[in-house]
Amino acid sequence: MRIFAPRLTAYAHCDLPCGVYDPAQARIEAESVKAIQEKYQGNEDPTFRTRAVQIKEQRAELVKHHLEVLWADYFKAAHFEKYPQLHGLFNDAVKAAGASGAKGSNDPATGQRLLDLIAEIDKIFWETKQAA
Amino acid sequence: MRIFAPRLTAYAHCDLPCGVYDPAQARIEAESVKAIQEKYQGNEDPTFRTRAVQIKEQRAELVKHHLEVLWADYFKAAHFEKYPQLHGLFNDAVKAAGASGAKGSNDPATGQRLLDLIAEIDKIFWETKQAA
Amino acid sequence: MRIFAPRLTAYAHCDLPCGVYDPAQARIEAESVKAIQEKYQGNEDPTFRTRAVQIKEQRAELVKHHLEVLWADYFKAAHFEKYPQLHGLFNDAVKAAGASGAKGSNDPATGQRLLDLIAEIDKIFWETKQAA
Amino acid sequence: MRIFAPRLTAYAHCDLPCGVYDPAQARIEAESVKAIQEKYQGNEDPTFRTRAVQIKEQRAELVKHHLEVLWADYFKAAHFEKYPQLHGLFNDAVKAAGASGAKGSNDPATGQRLLDLIAEIDKIFWETKQAA
Amino acid sequence: MRIFAPRLTAYAHCDLPCGVYDPAQARIEAESVKAIQEKYQGNEDPTFRTRAVQIKEQRAELVKHHLEVLWADYFKAAHFEKYPQLHGLFNDAVKAAGASGAKGSNDPATGQRLLDLIAEIDKIFWETKQAA
Amino acid sequence: MRIFAPRLTAYAHCDLPCGVYDPAQARIEAESVKAIQEKYQGNEDPTFRTRAVQIKEQRAELVKHHLEVLWADYFKAAHFEKYPQLHGLFNDAVKAAGASGAKGSNDPATGQRLLDLIAEIDKIFWETKQAA
Ligand code: NI
Ligand code: NI
Ligand code: NI
Ligand code: NI
Ligand code: NI
Ligand code: NI
Repeated sequence: MRIFAPRLTAYAHCDLPCGVYDPAQARIEAESVKAIQEKYQGNEDPTFRTRAVQIKEQRAELVKHHLEVLWADYFKAAHFEKYPQLHGLFNDAVKAAGASGAKGSNDPATGQRLLDLIAEIDKIFWETKQAA
Repeated sequence: MRIFAPRLTAYAHCDLPCGVYDPAQARIEAESVKAIQEKYQGNEDPTFRTRAVQIKEQRAELVKHHLEVLWADYFKAAHFEKYPQLHGLFNDAVKAAGASGAKGSNDPATGQRLLDLIAEIDKIFWETKQAA
Repeated sequence: MRIFAPRLTAYAHCDLPCGVYDPAQARIEAESVKAIQEKYQGNEDPTFRTRAVQIKEQRAELVKHHLEVLWADYFKAAHFEKYPQLHGLFNDAVKAAGASGAKGSNDPATGQRLLDLIAEIDKIFWETKQAA
Repeated sequence: MRIFAPRLTAYAHCDLPCGVYDPAQARIEAESVKAIQEKYQGNEDPTFRTRAVQIKEQRAELVKHHLEVLWADYFKAAHFEKYPQLHGLFNDAVKAAGASGAKGSNDPATGQRLLDLIAEIDKIFWETKQAA
Repeated sequence: MRIFAPRLTAYAHCDLPCGVYDPAQARIEAESVKAIQEKYQGNEDPTFRTRAVQIKEQRAELVKHHLEVLWADYFKAAHFEKYPQLHGLFNDAVKAAGASGAKGSNDPATGQRLLDLIAEIDKIFWETKQAA
Repeated sequence: MRIFAPRLTAYAHCDLPCGVYDPAQARIEAESVKAIQEKYQGNEDPTFRTRAVQIKEQRAELVKHHLEVLWADYFKAAHFEKYPQLHGLFNDAVKAAGASGAKGSNDPATGQRLLDLIAEIDKIFWETKQAA
């Protein structure tokens, strides 16, 4: 349960571009990935588990998509110069969402690692917004 | 520019269900809808305008989807009893995102009306979360 | 086997709007949901069952989509006034198509319950068309 | 307005296969295609026209999809032997839905031609169902 | 491992039409189908197998889509006259990609049969390009 | 017209992973992007132009997707070390496919620049395959 709802406007993406972006989109789907992994661990019904694997696949795909939007569309050459680790951080994050990470595993630790990497990206994102 | 980044975990959906929901997903796409309407008004290039109309169509469709997830999956009979206006509020909101609202128009006032309705839903959503 | 093919024009939707709607679209997908549940019960091959669960997920999602189109785009405020049960009926139907209904279960009874709710919506739909 | 609602169960498809098919799915989307063409002719607003072209594109794509499901999944070698014109009829129909037909044109005559071809397929479809 | 990378421009499709087509798109997805079948046979982990079945479903669907584009959009009446087996060849190929073929089975032999049929189509395709 | 059809097996992707990748998938869609731009320049019919802009949007999105699969799934840390320009090259390429490149423009020069960047990626890809 969350006591205080966010009062700030959240931002997102498209490829017009509309100019609004927010790592929350990737983080929300990654929360879902981890929650599905936890539910998978607590339920041995085969239909439930098949559904869990399959729905997690979609949420993880969305995480990858939202991360790739930030990496491709929001961040510019000047950002990558200022944050030389940024390319590698994004590549680690999409791999953590993919077959070698949370897509390929039902261990919630892989979902948490994905969330941690998104949090690092989120931190840099908001630094660049403040600097703008 | 936003001075303070959100520090709270945002929640979302799937149909497992994973148990996490957040009206932010609808609001983020609606922000995009309104931003696209504003950019449309400020740019007379025909290719830009065709792209704007078409991308807005997709973002508005996503708004509808995210709202329908909340209405169908998160809110239960007890909620609809406690908030008798809730069905109508959601129906107004999806119509405000549709052909008679922001999908059918490039007037940013339609995007703003959509955002206002989502804010009303968001308020009720967080009341129910606190009551849970 | 069906002896007499329908001779009447069927109607559907989009969000232009084109002005044509038909509950048959939801019902057709719901028939598929129930048929898949029956086939699942009669076949223990694990690959077949995985495919059945996954394909049923998609058909059930389409049922939800087609229902939400009717609820959001076809029915207007005057309809909801005349049929005060209509909001609740749609909400029950999308829940019957979702995780707590036919999506989450391979019991054909859940598919049948979904079909029954769609038949109730269909009845009201055609009453409103005759009244128009 | 339609006086009598259909009382017959409609059938559809998936690729499990669930075993239910119905040309109504293609016809419903084709009705939408033609209705959009008619609305396009009657409305010179550029936003409306852009939306019409774009939404018609999607409905025409769905027509092609539903036709290809029938051609690939429902009809078997014995059908194609009995109806030697069937391959060509389907090929004409998907072309009538494509760039050289209703997709590429806003003339309702192209939508009508598509509907006529679907009606021919529908006739053969129900003959084969009765013969089964 | 492939020693020599292709130096030739590959062609593809859309429904504008852009005028570029290439059976390589279907073949690439079919290669993936067969590779997934082989990996399925070599890995008994239930999560891996569920993912394999589900991802193969999507790749097989893409094979069907790419084949149907060639059959519907690239090949014209004159081609079907010159190659009377072409309709049947395409119908066999989409069936080999569907529930009665590689979609419904994890036997790599079904993937190989699909690849063989695509190779026959590919051969005719390039003959028609040379003749153009 | 292409005189010699490719005789080499092409490779592609999924996120199982199946282990097969090929930059041809991105290149094929980029060829389509450029061809659409050229057709746009040669046809002033407004329906054609709306369709061209909208279909190019989808093909460009597919280019981005195929490139991001290679960057996220095929290339590993060791590759990025050996080719320090590789992250930037991919980022340039997805930007060349996006709003600031071929998506946002109907100038075939933007499509050609996208093709040139994909050719650079293709060259590195096959070097790493030969080294494997
Ligand atoms: Ni945007
Ligand atoms: Ni969820
Ligand atoms: Ni419509
Ligand atoms: Ni079916
Ligand atoms: Ni094309
Ligand atoms: Ni793969």
